Amino acid sequence: MAIGHVRYSTAGSSMLKNVQPFVAGYRFGSVGVAHNGNLVNYRTLRAMLEDNGSIFNTSSDTEVVLHLIAISKARPFFLRIVDACEKLEGAYSMVFVTEDKLVAVRDPYGFRPLVMGRRTNGAVVFASETCALDLIEATYEREVNPGEVLVVDKKDGVQSLCLLPHPEPKQCIFEHIYFALPNSVVFGRSVYESRHVFGEILATEAPVDCDVVIAVPDSGVVAALGYAAKAGVPFQQGLIRSHYVGRTFIEPSQKIRDFGVKLKLSPVRGVLDGKRVVVVDDSIVRGTTSSKIVRLIKEAGAKEVHMRIASPPIIGSCYYGVDTPSAEELISNRMSVEEIREFIGCDSLAFLPFDSLQKMLASDSQKFCYACFSGKYPVMPKEVKVKKVGDFLDDGLNGPMDSIDGGWVRGPKNIDVEKEIDPLYQQSKI
Amino acid sequence: MAIGHVRYSTAGSSMLKNVQPFVAGYRFGSVGVAHNGNLVNYRTLRAMLEDNGSIFNTSSDTEVVLHLIAISKARPFFLRIVDACEKLEGAYSMVFVTEDKLVAVRDPYGFRPLVMGRRTNGAVVFASETCALDLIEATYEREVNPGEVLVVDKKDGVQSLCLLPHPEPKQCIFEHIYFALPNSVVFGRSVYESRHVFGEILATEAPVDCDVVIAVPDSGVVAALGYAAKAGVPFQQGLIRSHYVGRTFIEPSQKIRDFGVKLKLSPVRGVLDGKRVVVVDDSIVRGTTSSKIVRLIKEAGAKEVHMRIASPPIIGSCYYGVDTPSAEELISNRMSVEEIREFIGCDSLAFLPFDSLQKMLASDSQKFCYACFSGKYPVMPKEVKVKKVGDFLDDGLNGPMDSIDGGWVRGPKNIDVEKEIDPLYQQSKI
Amino acid sequence: MAIGHVRYSTAGSSMLKNVQPFVAGYRFGSVGVAHNGNLVNYRTLRAMLEDNGSIFNTSSDTEVVLHLIAISKARPFFLRIVDACEKLEGAYSMVFVTEDKLVAVRDPYGFRPLVMGRRTNGAVVFASETCALDLIEATYEREVNPGEVLVVDKKDGVQSLCLLPHPEPKQCIFEHIYFALPNSVVFGRSVYESRHVFGEILATEAPVDCDVVIAVPDSGVVAALGYAAKAGVPFQQGLIRSHYVGRTFIEPSQKIRDFGVKLKLSPVRGVLDGKRVVVVDDSIVRGTTSSKIVRLIKEAGAKEVHMRIASPPIIGSCYYGVDTPSAEELISNRMSVEEIREFIGCDSLAFLPFDSLQKMLASDSQKFCYACFSGKYPVMPKEVKVKKVGDFLDDGLNGPMDSIDGGWVRGPKNIDVEKEIDPLYQQSKI
Amino acid sequence: MAIGHVRYSTAGSSMLKNVQPFVAGYRFGSVGVAHNGNLVNYRTLRAMLEDNGSIFNTSSDTEVVLHLIAISKARPFFLRIVDACEKLEGAYSMVFVTEDKLVAVRDPYGFRPLVMGRRTNGAVVFASETCALDLIEATYEREVNPGEVLVVDKKDGVQSLCLLPHPEPKQCIFEHIYFALPNSVVFGRSVYESRHVFGEILATEAPVDCDVVIAVPDSGVVAALGYAAKAGVPFQQGLIRSHYVGRTFIEPSQKIRDFGVKLKLSPVRGVLDGKRVVVVDDSIVRGTTSSKIVRLIKEAGAKEVHMRIASPPIIGSCYYGVDTPSAEELISNRMSVEEIREFIGCDSLAFLPFDSLQKMLASDSQKFCYACFSGKYPVMPKEVKVKKVGDFLDDGLNGPMDSIDGGWVRGPKNIDVEKEIDPLYQQSKI
Repeated sequence: MAIGHVRYSTAGSSMLKNVQPFVAGYRFGSVGVAHNGNLVNYRTLRAMLEDNGSIFNTSSDTEVVLHLIAISKARPFFLRIVDACEKLEGAYSMVFVTEDKLVAVRDPYGFRPLVMGRRTNGAVVFASETCALDLIEATYEREVNPGEVLVVDKKDGVQSLCLLPHPEPKQCIFEHIYFALPNSVVFGRSVYESRHVFGEILATEAPVDCDVVIAVPDSGVVAALGYAAKAGVPFQQGLIRSHYVGRTFIEPSQKIRDFGVKLKLSPVRGVLDGKRVVVVDDSIVRGTTSSKIVRLIKEAGAKEVHMRIASPPIIGSCYYGVDTPSAEELISNRMSVEEIREFIGCDSLAFLPFDSLQKMLASDSQKFCYACFSGKYPVMPKEVKVKKVGDFLDDGLNGPMDSIDGGWVRGPKNIDVEKEIDPLYQQSKI
Repeated sequence: MAIGHVRYSTAGSSMLKNVQPFVAGYRFGSVGVAHNGNLVNYRTLRAMLEDNGSIFNTSSDTEVVLHLIAISKARPFFLRIVDACEKLEGAYSMVFVTEDKLVAVRDPYGFRPLVMGRRTNGAVVFASETCALDLIEATYEREVNPGEVLVVDKKDGVQSLCLLPHPEPKQCIFEHIYFALPNSVVFGRSVYESRHVFGEILATEAPVDCDVVIAVPDSGVVAALGYAAKAGVPFQQGLIRSHYVGRTFIEPSQKIRDFGVKLKLSPVRGVLDGKRVVVVDDSIVRGTTSSKIVRLIKEAGAKEVHMRIASPPIIGSCYYGVDTPSAEELISNRMSVEEIREFIGCDSLAFLPFDSLQKMLASDSQKFCYACFSGKYPVMPKEVKVKKVGDFLDDGLNGPMDSIDGGWVRGPKNIDVEKEIDPLYQQSKI
Repeated sequence: MAIGHVRYSTAGSSMLKNVQPFVAGYRFGSVGVAHNGNLVNYRTLRAMLEDNGSIFNTSSDTEVVLHLIAISKARPFFLRIVDACEKLEGAYSMVFVTEDKLVAVRDPYGFRPLVMGRRTNGAVVFASETCALDLIEATYEREVNPGEVLVVDKKDGVQSLCLLPHPEPKQCIFEHIYFALPNSVVFGRSVYESRHVFGEILATEAPVDCDVVIAVPDSGVVAALGYAAKAGVPFQQGLIRSHYVGRTFIEPSQKIRDFGVKLKLSPVRGVLDGKRVVVVDDSIVRGTTSSKIVRLIKEAGAKEVHMRIASPPIIGSCYYGVDTPSAEELISNRMSVEEIREFIGCDSLAFLPFDSLQKMLASDSQKFCYACFSGKYPVMPKEVKVKKVGDFLDDGLNGPMDSIDGGWVRGPKNIDVEKEIDPLYQQSKI
Repeated sequence: MAIGHVRYSTAGSSMLKNVQPFVAGYRFGSVGVAHNGNLVNYRTLRAMLEDNGSIFNTSSDTEVVLHLIAISKARPFFLRIVDACEKLEGAYSMVFVTEDKLVAVRDPYGFRPLVMGRRTNGAVVFASETCALDLIEATYEREVNPGEVLVVDKKDGVQSLCLLPHPEPKQCIFEHIYFALPNSVVFGRSVYESRHVFGEILATEAPVDCDVVIAVPDSGVVAALGYAAKAGVPFQQGLIRSHYVGRTFIEPSQKIRDFGVKLKLSPVRGVLDGKRVVVVDDSIVRGTTSSKIVRLIKEAGAKEVHMRIASPPIIGSCYYGVDTPSAEELISNRMSVEEIREFIGCDSLAFLPFDSLQKMLASDSQKFCYACFSGKYPVMPKEVKVKKVGDFLDDGLNGPMDSIDGGWVRGPKNIDVEKEIDPLYQQSKI
């Protein structure tokens, strides 16, 4: 039995303590936990626990679970986990490992994904994305349902328990737009297909005369292929993504970070020179990266640059585990599409229409959370979203991770993130 | 003034001494050197130098240059470098840094590339590929000519000297097939265009009915786009390359390496299931990787798999800096195309015809070295090519680097290579 | 403001967490603590705290104090420290540092020393021994009294509070026998003088014809000088202590440890050959080291070896911070003096008579704890003394620290001690 | 077969390359070498070798031997070692290890010691001092003679060859005064006895009324015992040497180094207060440490401080492996004894009379080098002694090693010494 966790690594030993999985030793044994998502009542719970005498070792919201387990009076031991989770609000897909049990929990809204697979030897595996199952030759069995607790042990196999179920799940639409690897099946849908269709919709609803379709790699590639196929225009590798990038971000200075962006994306002049270019990206957050990409393409000789975004405009900050900046910093919250186009400097700009997205999802549409597009939050965040040192994950080129990759990272917002090694590191969280 | 070198990193501190640049301290000052290529008379030179009393610190062929400088009687100091280089045979693009000069040297055949650029502040820059110039905003000026020595200092700027010029250059064709980044201009030609044309030729000369064209990423992508465009069949991301891979190879055991290959390439079932698939790769070395890729695609549901290789069959080992296995290990040296097809398990297989390649290069064709395709060596290797511990860089899945990336790495064969971090690390050598 | 702690270092990062000072973050700020001594009700307190939901991070008894502070309802903050200490039983000299205060506490029996000094700039300093004050040019002011709490801050200077005072202190006699550096003043007495007198008493009460007096360095030197002076026999350096020793103990194997003992003490043949030798040591614990020392001296040619021990026989294990083995392992608990002499192989053996020791201490005699000599414990240990992995600190040559240095180390018994670097490291604890 | 070397460790990885043993790989195998002593013709040899094309990796004089071996035409291989050594001038006790032989060489003057021992299993061992043999239970057999080469291998056992023998050896007197451990036999004499006699001579020739005799530990202890015995005055531990010291010197700043000196020697007030004190040290170099020691003793209450030095005044710098400062910096070269006494601040000062030293050595007297006392050099140093960064090993408290330990360290002067871990580390060189 083992659990693991992939997140943005933090620099310096002082922050090492924030690295999951977290482990706590109790009188009756040890428990480890890994958490994907973000709790909205963390501060309230922590204050209550500290009043009772609990001592916190980290600044991560995940630690409250370990203390809630410690004060729980439930028996047997694994029921303490259930007891603890019932007090949590917000987004949490969690796996626990005890001395003899593996426990997987998904919050009642099912904000973040969590799937169960099985290896040929019978071993049960939980993961955020199905692509992790493929790698270890486990067969995808089913999703952990929203509000479900699965307890696995040698004696009884897999048992299902219920937390507080909710009538309507609210699954994160951003998994399909940016987070998940394209070869994953998330919330029962192929991510590759979703993105290809996003591109096709853009080609249909925002057509433009052009010579070549290119992508902002890697997250824009599948939508760009969809656009090119629908538009009947050749797709080319107009921007090459360097594999050196992550390392650059270890360097702290602005100058080196600017160089990092250059390293990250190199234009191919032969593809772009003298052409009318459609460039497809997954989303726009602050808008600064997009503007630099447009400049890069124009400097390589492009005659026209038309930007197509495979998601609706983002107007609201996320409280459920996507590390968006505050609403004021979101460019779509401040500007009209035409103003954004002007800011970015492209010749035309179009977003995926929100209603087309919902129409495409059809009967599943109600099961998704669109808070970042609509501002309507399924679970109201009771605590103020505080801007912290670590919250520099955005689409600006001045942050350690920029929206060339969409600018979104998974993971608890409460963590002090100081750098990140590789953008794909956080693609598969548990 | 500074020089650097990108190579496969070696494991263990004992091998750290083989990491370039090498530096030697002389009575009159220190000299550093970085070397791309491979000397064919290294053993002879080393024996001669050791007889004279030189003590070698590394097992790299590059070190002989430092000793040749030490025993040279030429004056002033930088002429010792010229004196030393005149004794070398084989492939060498080298940069030296002395107390006050930067010296760039390219062997008379010009096997390996070497370009000169200039920054807006006047700084002179040398690099293997033009993409390195782009990154630091230096403008490409020209190639260092075969047999040319360029000496740069503050006082006299750039001066050109001549080694022994050769009537006909023999530039490595493999730079266009595999090594160089597609956004580079190498030997005066766009690498992106070369590869796109390779794909187009394959579509014309080895057409097949199919539903989708995919690439073995990253080195097969541009040729696959060329194939798809010419064939009028959609290109899709059927194999996704993971960014975790390099690290896996640090692990020594076979079991973990097998897992590494799985991590490296993930099939996208939605793209492949039930389809007739053309998969384009840059080359085949031992053939073992290709066979695993075909299996991977078939397991994802492909009805047919047609492999197209964007280079002619490789029948000869390279002595000029490409780390090919010995001739006996090359599958094209032992089998016919039909036998290889059977071994690999694909439904059809075609290579880029050698004469089509030469025809495409037109008047430049004579300026290239095709020894690996023809077995005709421009400079005869006088020393036996010894199989060493480090020579495990091949296309087999059982080596630390496999031909998913083409199986070729740059760099002096004499180096004890124990692992490599990332295949792209050696793309830009100096 | 700062606190520090000197203890036996532990091997491996896993045990790093047991290294003091410990720090805890509370809602109202952080507190650090360093502890000299050993609690006898640690297990009871820990069980109570864990029932309440506290999560322990270490296996050290010191951590209970941090949790007792967390659950205390006392205000202001520093009164929580007093509140917590009132629940402790056993030996504790502790220093705490909060955001704005330094707090020093000594248990009601005053088992372990704790002194206060002042630098010329007015800075207040606490330490276990006065020699630490000398080093930083602080002037010794007074002892922290048994049961006293001293609170130091910028606003109010030094304030004295009371815990539960006890009519009669029970100060550890072993500080004078082994622990303290000879240049310290401990419990108001010069350690050098105490040891010199111990040697003089031995010369008076257990005289023997001899040619030379030598010491087991370093802890037996002062008593040996006292013996030699009283006996009128020359003192010589018959055993030389190597400074390499500590490091040797990092090596785990028995073979290397044996070599370590040889390295530690080297005989001087010129001093010992053909002589009747008196060798003075501070104490005997298990007896194995003493027997090896006698053999070492005889192999260097000594005609007779007379061992004189500057403490009474140890028959009881310590529960207050001296890491003695269990009673069954103490040689004086199992054998008569004559049996010990035979086991050790010396020609005569004498211990410091218990009543002479008490007589010498005169009116102060009642203020000392003699539990290890008498078996009478001032505070009854309620919990079983469990033999743990770390408890290998003894006088055997097969342990990482042997009684060449007296075999005693300070510090909480509950700590998993895996090695120790240098015997003097634990001489000055806080 | 193995060789090792103990020297002052150097800080920083850049200087790691200067750490012995040095190893060189030749065509016919590898050779390792460790060297005690200092060559006086190093610069001449290095210039000659560099002219021939040798590339030096270190700034140590020892490296010339490896290059001389490389250019030697002698056969078989071990005769190259003899050939190389014949070109050396100055002090060298060296051990070499080849693929199948151990070779020990001592220069014709025998400046530095080198002894041979044998273990019970027949293994032959070479070492600087006999105490190293004791530690590994090897029996001392004999000295390696001045000018002798001993070759040990499995087939032929031990063979003796001759370099250029010299009629009169010139063994370093400083081995008996400071370097060697007291339990060693060096140049056939017991070091302990030499030092005890030095102290007795001082008591006879420079008597003074006093209450107590103390030593500057550790190197002054035996002479102090000799003084006390002869004078009939009690010896006491008036200064205690801390074991923390070495580590302090890792810290670079002056402030921390001053604290280091304080840590190193702690006065025992009870021994010194109100007393007339004789303090015995082994030597005086620059005089600054002595002055601080006198101040330390007076501040602890001493009424009078009489300093007795167990060596004659040092007036000349050493060229044979003792790292003395230049003649101008030697206090005895600039001042009379009375001036030194005044500078140091003691009430009386006496050195060991040079003629008494010679008389005591009797018939062996001619076999010693006294250049540092007389200025008469057996081998004239042809090269200027250059003051280098590393040459801060002196008796001042402002250097990383001060003469509390005599201020002398063994080892090649050419090495860049940046710190030293523990004064005893260099006591046994090979």
